[in-house]
Amino acid sequence: MGQVLRRLSVGTLSVIMASGVAVAIRRNSAPPRIRGFFASRVEAEEQLEQKLRRVPDSSRAESNLRKLTSEPHMAGTDASHRVAEWLREQYESYGFDANIVSYEVWLPMPLEVRLELIEPEKKTLATQEEPYAEDKDTSDPRAAIGFNTYSASGEVTAQVIYVNYGNLEDYRELETRGLSVQGKIVLARYGKSYRGIKARLAEEHKAAGLILYSDPDDDGYDAGDVFPHGPWRPRSGIQRGSILYTELYPGDPLTPGVAAAANATRLIPSDAASLPHIPTMPINAQDAAAILSHLDGPKVPRNWQGGLPMTYHLGPGGAQVHLKIAMDYKPRRLYDVIARLRGENDNEWVVLGNHHDAWVYGAVDPGSGTSVMLETARSFGELARSGWKPRRSIVICEWDGEEPGLLGSTEWVEDNLKELQTKAVAYVNTDVGVAGPNFSASATPSLGELVREVSREVADPITGKTVYDTWKDRVEHAKPESSGVAREEPLMANGDVAIGALGAGSDFCPFFDHAGIPSIDLGFGGEYGVYHSLYDDFFWMKHFGDPTFEYHAALARILGTLTLRLDEADILPFDYSAYASDIQNQLATLSADAKKNGLATLNLHGISDAVTGLTLAAAQVTPALRALEIAPSHASTQTQINLELADVEQALLSPRGLIGRPWYRHTLYAPGTYAGYEAARLPGLREAVDRKDSATAQLEADEIAAALVRATDRLQQIAHLAQPASSASTGVTQPLSLR
Amino acid sequence: MGQVLRRLSVGTLSVIMASGVAVAIRRNSAPPRIRGFFASRVEAEEQLEQKLRRVPDSSRAESNLRKLTSEPHMAGTDASHRVAEWLREQYESYGFDANIVSYEVWLPMPLEVRLELIEPEKKTLATQEEPYAEDKDTSDPRAAIGFNTYSASGEVTAQVIYVNYGNLEDYRELETRGLSVQGKIVLARYGKSYRGIKARLAEEHKAAGLILYSDPDDDGYDAGDVFPHGPWRPRSGIQRGSILYTELYPGDPLTPGVAAAANATRLIPSDAASLPHIPTMPINAQDAAAILSHLDGPKVPRNWQGGLPMTYHLGPGGAQVHLKIAMDYKPRRLYDVIARLRGENDNEWVVLGNHHDAWVYGAVDPGSGTSVMLETARSFGELARSGWKPRRSIVICEWDGEEPGLLGSTEWVEDNLKELQTKAVAYVNTDVGVAGPNFSASATPSLGELVREVSREVADPITGKTVYDTWKDRVEHAKPESSGVAREEPLMANGDVAIGALGAGSDFCPFFDHAGIPSIDLGFGGEYGVYHSLYDDFFWMKHFGDPTFEYHAALARILGTLTLRLDEADILPFDYSAYASDIQNQLATLSADAKKNGLATLNLHGISDAVTGLTLAAAQVTPALRALEIAPSHASTQTQINLELADVEQALLSPRGLIGRPWYRHTLYAPGTYAGYEAARLPGLREAVDRKDSATAQLEADEIAAALVRATDRLQQIAHLAQPASSASTGVTQPLSLR
Repeated sequence: MGQVLRRLSVGTLSVIMASGVAVAIRRNSAPPRIRGFFASRVEAEEQLEQKLRRVPDSSRAESNLRKLTSEPHMAGTDASHRVAEWLREQYESYGFDANIVSYEVWLPMPLEVRLELIEPEKKTLATQEEPYAEDKDTSDPRAAIGFNTYSASGEVTAQVIYVNYGNLEDYRELETRGLSVQGKIVLARYGKSYRGIKARLAEEHKAAGLILYSDPDDDGYDAGDVFPHGPWRPRSGIQRGSILYTELYPGDPLTPGVAAAANATRLIPSDAASLPHIPTMPINAQDAAAILSHLDGPKVPRNWQGGLPMTYHLGPGGAQVHLKIAMDYKPRRLYDVIARLRGENDNEWVVLGNHHDAWVYGAVDPGSGTSVMLETARSFGELARSGWKPRRSIVICEWDGEEPGLLGSTEWVEDNLKELQTKAVAYVNTDVGVAGPNFSASATPSLGELVREVSREVADPITGKTVYDTWKDRVEHAKPESSGVAREEPLMANGDVAIGALGAGSDFCPFFDHAGIPSIDLGFGGEYGVYHSLYDDFFWMKHFGDPTFEYHAALARILGTLTLRLDEADILPFDYSAYASDIQNQLATLSADAKKNGLATLNLHGISDAVTGLTLAAAQVTPALRALEIAPSHASTQTQINLELADVEQALLSPRGLIGRPWYRHTLYAPGTYAGYEAARLPGLREAVDRKDSATAQLEADEIAAALVRATDRLQQIAHLAQPASSASTGVTQPLSLR
Repeated sequence: MGQVLRRLSVGTLSVIMASGVAVAIRRNSAPPRIRGFFASRVEAEEQLEQKLRRVPDSSRAESNLRKLTSEPHMAGTDASHRVAEWLREQYESYGFDANIVSYEVWLPMPLEVRLELIEPEKKTLATQEEPYAEDKDTSDPRAAIGFNTYSASGEVTAQVIYVNYGNLEDYRELETRGLSVQGKIVLARYGKSYRGIKARLAEEHKAAGLILYSDPDDDGYDAGDVFPHGPWRPRSGIQRGSILYTELYPGDPLTPGVAAAANATRLIPSDAASLPHIPTMPINAQDAAAILSHLDGPKVPRNWQGGLPMTYHLGPGGAQVHLKIAMDYKPRRLYDVIARLRGENDNEWVVLGNHHDAWVYGAVDPGSGTSVMLETARSFGELARSGWKPRRSIVICEWDGEEPGLLGSTEWVEDNLKELQTKAVAYVNTDVGVAGPNFSASATPSLGELVREVSREVADPITGKTVYDTWKDRVEHAKPESSGVAREEPLMANGDVAIGALGAGSDFCPFFDHAGIPSIDLGFGGEYGVYHSLYDDFFWMKHFGDPTFEYHAALARILGTLTLRLDEADILPFDYSAYASDIQNQLATLSADAKKNGLATLNLHGISDAVTGLTLAAAQVTPALRALEIAPSHASTQTQINLELADVEQALLSPRGLIGRPWYRHTLYAPGTYAGYEAARLPGLREAVDRKDSATAQLEADEIAAALVRATDRLQQIAHLAQPASSASTGVTQPLSLR
């Protein structure tokens, strides 16, 4: 730039300065206050949003949740079907066109889950969760026992080895000590990654069985007071959960990539790569203590020591256990609810979703999200009743079978892939909607700024400041060691709150990772230790999570506003400059790691050049779109721009998918194969570099470069489409006359 | 240097190159292998050292320790006197001239130490340590109860507040929460700093009493297996210990700065600044659990949570305790043993020391050090028996009353201050001599290199490598989170192992901080959880600490070699370049912190210039002394150089002492007033900057600058004295002819 400037004549400079004046005038005349909206439409949008935000009601959110948690309703049970029917009725009552869509998936139920200590003493373990008199929901006999769905059936008697969190680095530590888990039962604590990854690693290391337990150091008394006196997991609390290898592909294990319809071609179970092969079960802290107290062998490394009052040992000597698991595998029926509020343009959809199935009552997971989604839908219904019709169609999905492995959402996305890729402009997910007062979000980079903007429009119920300012305050004052809750992402260099990358563990996965639909996941977090237990119930929410239900109402306002911004936008509020800089950041560390791992021949120039191209194109598009908001073009151009904007994400999909797990097609983000819930960035390349696989790394690098070039082409196309309007700098007054 | 070089003519350059050749020749001719020794004397020294290192014997070390731990022998008891008498006899038997030197100090004994929980239930606490059948020493009725010496007598019933480690930052955290400990009993866990600082802080914050306890997270089951199955503290283990405010001045509280001789002028106790004023007692983990389980109020910050199986709360509600302490304060007699092996030159002394009093048996603390010191003395005795006479006198001190507050050593140093400052060339301390296999040392910077050199001469019993290489390997592979033992200082930039700064907590303190005698403290550490408890006994050492007693023998070899290097040196092996760089490093952070704390007017140029001067002088001295080893000067110069070398440290003393605690006179090092055992560097300045006291900071800065200038003057004097010999570069063959 400096170089260029120095070549300019004084004459040219005065022209630039004059146009600067023009820009200043333009700013004064009528700055659009809402990104994505023509100046002439901002006021109407503001009024619409304000009207919407007056609807959500905390007492209705509370009664929704009381209804949703009235009985345990695990996927594959009649109770789950009953919830789906009730939800369908609610959406109908709000004026939506709501239907149940059903799939038949391969889903087990537990017949027997038994564990006994047999040496050095006999003791029955796998005890169930204690009831508490103050909360009668905790003594309902219909609650499912503690089990891990998709465990293999099996019976084994063996010694035990404690493997800390059971992650890749833990097995590496055992290897340096010459300790093999082959033929042993491994005892791993929950935390740090997805339990299915722990199961796959135990299987890959030839363990005979896997016991997962909840250590008080992670979500029990070391984190805070335990239920029913506090929000954390009591000693008898069990974390249920799936161990399906969703990091290979989620959804029905027998129909990867296609819908589990009646007539679908199905794999035989032994060919399904996502199905685990060793018996796996979850236990509570007190049963884990009974095993750990007997283990001998060397004491564990200091950071493997958990919160039980004893010195942890690795084993394998000292304790022998007998484990028996019998699972009833068969096809079972799931019930998604799909509710639509048809827009002026039914060829463009804004899709919202959360799941309705729960391990037991699921007050937080997913009840808080479901309750909020209902209030959000009711708000649109109220607007519609007063004459409003959405510009685009709003599609709200209530997924079944999320807990076993994102079954309902994955099958529906696979079922409707082409239509979604053509019509869906974005997918907005909430799951753990409210577990406390701490707002956070993950999103595709191009939608991060939109989340920040929307969070500035809603007040935080406790602080009275905006949700955004409250969020930023919290991040700024976060003490990593004292939070007891999720780690906060630090603020960005410009002082904005950072939006996390989309990882794994909820229903945005098929939309984003498989279909390339720009996605967002959001909610209020907090001190939530009863995850996937009997105690995630109404009592918990009423005493600890959100006693006034005001955070439920606040989340409905956020979801509603966010939806209106996407639904009503004249120009979809995507910001691709954020995308480019996120990739740029990754590239530097990746290049260094490749060198460190001896991948000398790996050529990253293709990606590097492509990122530069993307950056330049994004830098053109962003101001061009802003200019367009002031000086709108013809409606046909506008439609085409929006189509292109929503499609850039799909340009980033790899046609062949990631090598080794082709269901995952996004070249830039995927759940880590070994990293749990965290997102891997440039996943195919990153993981190939980590395992020093030079050939795959190059193939994936080339695929990423090609994807970036495709995305850049689309952005250039958008810039081109936007050009005529934005370059018409003399026509600044024209759009105003449109009012 | 580059500037100077460029001005030289080609002719001059060839001269430099020629002298370069001369240096090369000189190196080939006979490089002195031992720093501090004339080339002609190296071989004799090597032979002497080898002979010495053959003497120490592990079975004798074991029988020494068995004898030393045959009964509890706390300072002020007859048993401690008996140990002193026995030690005197041993030193006599090795050929030393050994005497008991006695002082009468103000020292309490516990009459009653009682604690009861009175709300919400009645429970007797302050339970004593459990006996174990496999170790009959644990059921000896003579063991002292758990108490904190120098606690005030008193009785109080009050609510309890948990204050984490009870350090400055912990009280700051409570203040941000608006929680005052005034009138409450504070419950603090041991660790992170000296317990006397915890007591002073509790007193300063107006607490009514202080209970100290041992948390399993710090030295109990979270660190490793507990006694008698492992080396860590069992649930009933109590850490006894002094709370005397030794950070103000150590030694007899009634005679600061002078010896506690019969005729000394004594303060009345209420005027003694080092005496605490609130009742303070130590309890074990199980009694602490009984209190903590009842505390209510907010839950603690995450890093305050300890290892007991419950959620910790701050209080003050929930629990009320009754605490009663009666101490019998009166003058009591201490018995130091001073053993001398007279050298050729009795005007120069090498002083060694460790204490002999113990809280109970003190197998590790101090028995391992005492046992080693005896073997070291016996080694000198063996050399003497075969005709050797030390060059300088060797003085070995066995201190009494170290545990209550460095009483025996402080009184003796105060008693002999002038003579020590004239004659002592160095003081070498060991206390916890052997607690495991991990060698480490603290020293004045000028003696760090000597410690490294000596550790290269002794083999590690387990690895077979040198102690130095084993030490370096350990530091290089240290995982901070997995050690369970002391934090390792990282390697220095040149790859050498770092030597710690001298902090507090053992008998080097009066020598170094008050008298300015260059000092060293060293020993082998390890997994040592029974510190100051009944369980620090022979059984512990035999099962966990050093079962073969080979590390005891190795330490005797190190101590012996170190002493010979100091005793026999032609030119004392001090290295002042290390000193200069240590201060230089401090200055940068200090200057930044002063700015941060708004001390805008603080002028550090004086120090900065003085450090530069010291650096330049040290850079002259070091090569000049090395040259002197090759080309010795007259004996008179040599004596003068040695006198000056030993005196540089005293030049760093402040004549008026540190402001607020004048007993501490070293301007560069002191125990932190609030920082516990760690050394504060540039302490007067550092602490004034931390508390934003601009006036004191400037006074201390000026004092430091003056001290550095004095030290620089001495170094310049040394360089000048060494000059004639080192500049006689043509006389390279002369010293060889002296052989």
